[in-house]
Amino acid sequence: MKKLNAHNRRWLTEEIIDLLKQQERIAFRLQFLELHSTDQRFVFLSLNEQERTLVYEYITPQEFAEIFQGLDNMEQGWAARELEEEYLAKVLDEMYSDDVADFLGSLSGERQASILAALEEQGSADVRELLSYPEETAGAVMTKEFISVRSDQTIQEVIERLRRETPNAETIYYIYVTDAAGHLVGVVSLRELITSSPEKTIEKVMGKKVISTSVTTDQEDAAHLISEYDLLAIPVLTHNDVLVGIITVDDVIDILEEEATEDVGELSASRGATDVNVTAVQAAKKRAPWIVLLMFLGLITANVIGQFEETLEAVALLSAFIPLIMDSAGNTGTQSLAVAVRSLATGSVERKGVIQLLKRELGIGILLGIISAIVLIGIIRIFYGNLILAVIVATSLFLTLSVAALIGAIFPLIINKLNIDPAVASGPFITTLNDIIGLLIYFTIATSLLQYL
Amino acid sequence: MKKLNAHNRRWLTEEIIDLLKQQERIAFRLQFLELHSTDQRFVFLSLNEQERTLVYEYITPQEFAEIFQGLDNMEQGWAARELEEEYLAKVLDEMYSDDVADFLGSLSGERQASILAALEEQGSADVRELLSYPEETAGAVMTKEFISVRSDQTIQEVIERLRRETPNAETIYYIYVTDAAGHLVGVVSLRELITSSPEKTIEKVMGKKVISTSVTTDQEDAAHLISEYDLLAIPVLTHNDVLVGIITVDDVIDILEEEATEDVGELSASRGATDVNVTAVQAAKKRAPWIVLLMFLGLITANVIGQFEETLEAVALLSAFIPLIMDSAGNTGTQSLAVAVRSLATGSVERKGVIQLLKRELGIGILLGIISAIVLIGIIRIFYGNLILAVIVATSLFLTLSVAALIGAIFPLIINKLNIDPAVASGPFITTLNDIIGLLIYFTIATSLLQYL
Repeated sequence: MKKLNAHNRRWLTEEIIDLLKQQERIAFRLQFLELHSTDQRFVFLSLNEQERTLVYEYITPQEFAEIFQGLDNMEQGWAARELEEEYLAKVLDEMYSDDVADFLGSLSGERQASILAALEEQGSADVRELLSYPEETAGAVMTKEFISVRSDQTIQEVIERLRRETPNAETIYYIYVTDAAGHLVGVVSLRELITSSPEKTIEKVMGKKVISTSVTTDQEDAAHLISEYDLLAIPVLTHNDVLVGIITVDDVIDILEEEATEDVGELSASRGATDVNVTAVQAAKKRAPWIVLLMFLGLITANVIGQFEETLEAVALLSAFIPLIMDSAGNTGTQSLAVAVRSLATGSVERKGVIQLLKRELGIGILLGIISAIVLIGIIRIFYGNLILAVIVATSLFLTLSVAALIGAIFPLIINKLNIDPAVASGPFITTLNDIIGLLIYFTIATSLLQYL
Repeated sequence: MKKLNAHNRRWLTEEIIDLLKQQERIAFRLQFLELHSTDQRFVFLSLNEQERTLVYEYITPQEFAEIFQGLDNMEQGWAARELEEEYLAKVLDEMYSDDVADFLGSLSGERQASILAALEEQGSADVRELLSYPEETAGAVMTKEFISVRSDQTIQEVIERLRRETPNAETIYYIYVTDAAGHLVGVVSLRELITSSPEKTIEKVMGKKVISTSVTTDQEDAAHLISEYDLLAIPVLTHNDVLVGIITVDDVIDILEEEATEDVGELSASRGATDVNVTAVQAAKKRAPWIVLLMFLGLITANVIGQFEETLEAVALLSAFIPLIMDSAGNTGTQSLAVAVRSLATGSVERKGVIQLLKRELGIGILLGIISAIVLIGIIRIFYGNLILAVIVATSLFLTLSVAALIGAIFPLIINKLNIDPAVASGPFITTLNDIIGLLIYFTIATSLLQYL
C-alpha cells in the first residue's frame, strides 16, 4: 500500500507537474485524478498560472469542483478570476450549497449577483437562502443537501432511495424524518437502518428526541452541540421547527479551529491578524492600530509614573522594580484571563456559575500574592540589603496580584454578558490596566514610606 | 417535538431528581433512560452522594457505562470510588477500549492493575495494549473496536456481518480491508456498500489509497489528518502496516479542543492550569511556579535597569517610558508568537516555509516600528517639549519592535524543531526577553545621549 506523507507528497507533486509541463494530458489525468482531493489541492496550489491554465483545460468542472471547495476564500478568489464564467458556474453547481455560499459571501455584491444568475435554479435558490442569514449563524453555515423521509416509509424503501440519491447528499449517515409540512419529527441513523428488518416502518425505529439547532443560533453554539453529543451532523430548524438544513461534523472542526484562532488572537491583541495568508504590509496594517492604541495606553502609564517624579528623584532604585511589578501583574492577570476565556469557550462557566469562578480566581490571586511576597522579601533583603524597600515591593506585589487575578477573570465575563466585541478584553488591555493599578499601588506605598528609605 | 435547551434541561433535571428522592424506581428509569447520554450525565453530575447511590442501584452497569464514558477523569475518579468493584468492572467491560484506557491511565499503577484483573479477557488485553503506547500518541488514543473484512468477501456478506456486529464497533461507517496477516489493504465506506450491487466483492469497490497514521504518531498530527481529509475515522497501523485500531472524529474534536486550550495556556504561562475543575489551592499550586519563575526573570530586568542607576538619577523622567518600551515590545512579540503558534497548529508553516514566515514577521516588526516611532516622536515633542527625549524613545522603540517581532516568531519554531516542551516558549518568557532587550536598547541610547538631555 502506498503511504502518503510530507516527503513523497512533494515527490509526487514534482512528477505530476512534469507531466503537465510536457502537456501529457492523458497521463496527467490518470495520475492526478487518482489522488485524494486534499492532495489534488496541494498539487494545484504549487502550480504557476500557466500550469493552472492547463489544469482547467485538462480536467472537467465536475472534477475541479473537488479542489475548489477545499480552497480558502482568498485562493478561491484568484482561481475564480482565472476561470471562464461558464466553467466556474459548472464548478459551483457541483458543490454543496454551504461551500458555494461561503465562497460567494466573500465576493462583492455585484460579482455575487452575476455568478448567482449563472447557476442552476435549485442551487441558486439554496445559496440565496444561506446568504440571507447573518454571518456565523447556523443558517449561514448549514448545507441544504440532506436526506429527509416520511415516517410511514419502510426501511427497504428508504434504503432504495439512498442508493439513488446518495451522490447528492452531504451525509447519508443520518436520515431525518419530517411530516407533510416539513417539521422535523425524528431521526434515524444508517447504522440503525442496516441493523433493523427491512419491512419495518421508519416510525418504529426512529429516535423522537432529536438534538437540533435553529437558523439564528451562533455557529459556535451549534458546533458545541455536535461536539457535546458526539454527533456526525445536526439538523437546523426554522422557528416553526421546519427542517431547512444540516451542519456536518467536518464543518464543526473548521468552526472550532476558527474559534481557537480567535481566542489566541484575543489573548495577544492580534485578533483578525493571525492570518498567515496575507503579506507583511497587509498584516502590519491590521496589527498597527492595536500596537498604536496600546502605545497610547502605555503613555497613560508613563503619566502615572511621571506623577511620582519626585519620589523617583529621591530614590532612583525604585524604578528598577517597575518591570517586576508590571510583569507579575500582567502574568497573573493573563492566567486568569486564559482560564475565563477557555471556560466561556467550553461552556464550563455556565455549568459552574460565575461567582464560583470569580471567587476561585480571587483566592488564587491572594495565594499567589502571598507566595510571591514571601519569596521576594527574602531576595531583596539579601541582594539589596534594604528591608524597607523589600517591604514596599512585597506589599505592593501582594495587593497587585490579588487585584490582577480578579480583573483578569472578571473582564471577559462582563464583556461576554454585554455582548461587546471581546477584542477589547484582550490580554494586553488587561495587562495595561493591571500595570497601571500595580504601579499606582507601588508608588503610593513607596511615597508614603519615602522618609524611611 | 421536545426541544432541549439550557432552560428546560434544568427543569427536567429537577423533575428527575424528585423521582429519585421519592425512590420512584420505575418512573425514574422511564424518564432518565429516555434521555440522551449527554443529558443523563448532566443530571448525574448535579446529584449529591446519597442520590448517586440510588442511581447505581436503579440502573444497570451497562446503562451506567453510557454516563461514565462521558465523564472527565476527575469525575470518573470519584464515581469509581463510590462503585462496587464488580459493578465497576461491568461498566468498563461495556465501554470502548480507548475510553477505558483513558480512565485507567489516570489512576495509580496499583489501582490500575487491580481493575484490569477484574475485566473480561479480550477487553483487558485491548486496554493493556493501549496503555503500552506513550501518552498522546495515536496508539494511546485509538480504539480497538473497528470492523475489518477480507477483500474476497461479497458486499452482501459484509452487510450481513455488520447487522450482527454493529453494537460492538465504534463506527461502522468505514469498513477496513485487511489481508491474512492483518495488513491494511483498503477501505470501503458504508455509503459505498449501500450503493453498490450486493453480489460484488469488496475488492471491486474498496479504495486502495488509504489515509492512515501510525501508533507512534502524535495524536495532534493524526487529528489534523482527519480534519484535513474530512474523514470520519482514521486507521492506526503498526510499523509493519498491520491495522491495530482506529481514531474516530468525535475523539478528534476532543483532541483539537485540548490542543486549543494548550495553545492558550502557552500564551499565558498557565499551561496545565486552565483547568477549572480544580480548587483555588490546587490551581495556585500549579500556577505559582510560573509566577515565581517569571518574577525571577523580572529581577533580571530589575538588575538591567539597576546598571543604569546613574543615568536614571540624572534624568528621572526616563523611567516614565520604561512601561511604554516594555509594553510595546511585549505586544509585538506576542502577536508574532500567536501567528507562529497558530501556523504550527494548522500546519501552514509546513506549506509556506519557515523562512517565509520569519521574513514576513521581521517585515511587520520594522513597519510597526516605523509607524510607532513617527506617532511617538510627535506626541513626546508636544507634551514633554523635549526633542532629544523624543528621539531617544522613538529610536529605541523602532529597534525594539523590529527585534521583538522576530523573536516572537522564531522562538516557537526553534522549540518545535528541537522537540522541547513548548511551554518554555510561552508568551511571558518571550515578553520578558523582549523587555530586557528593549530596555537595554533604550538605556544604552539614553546614556550615550545623556549630555544632550
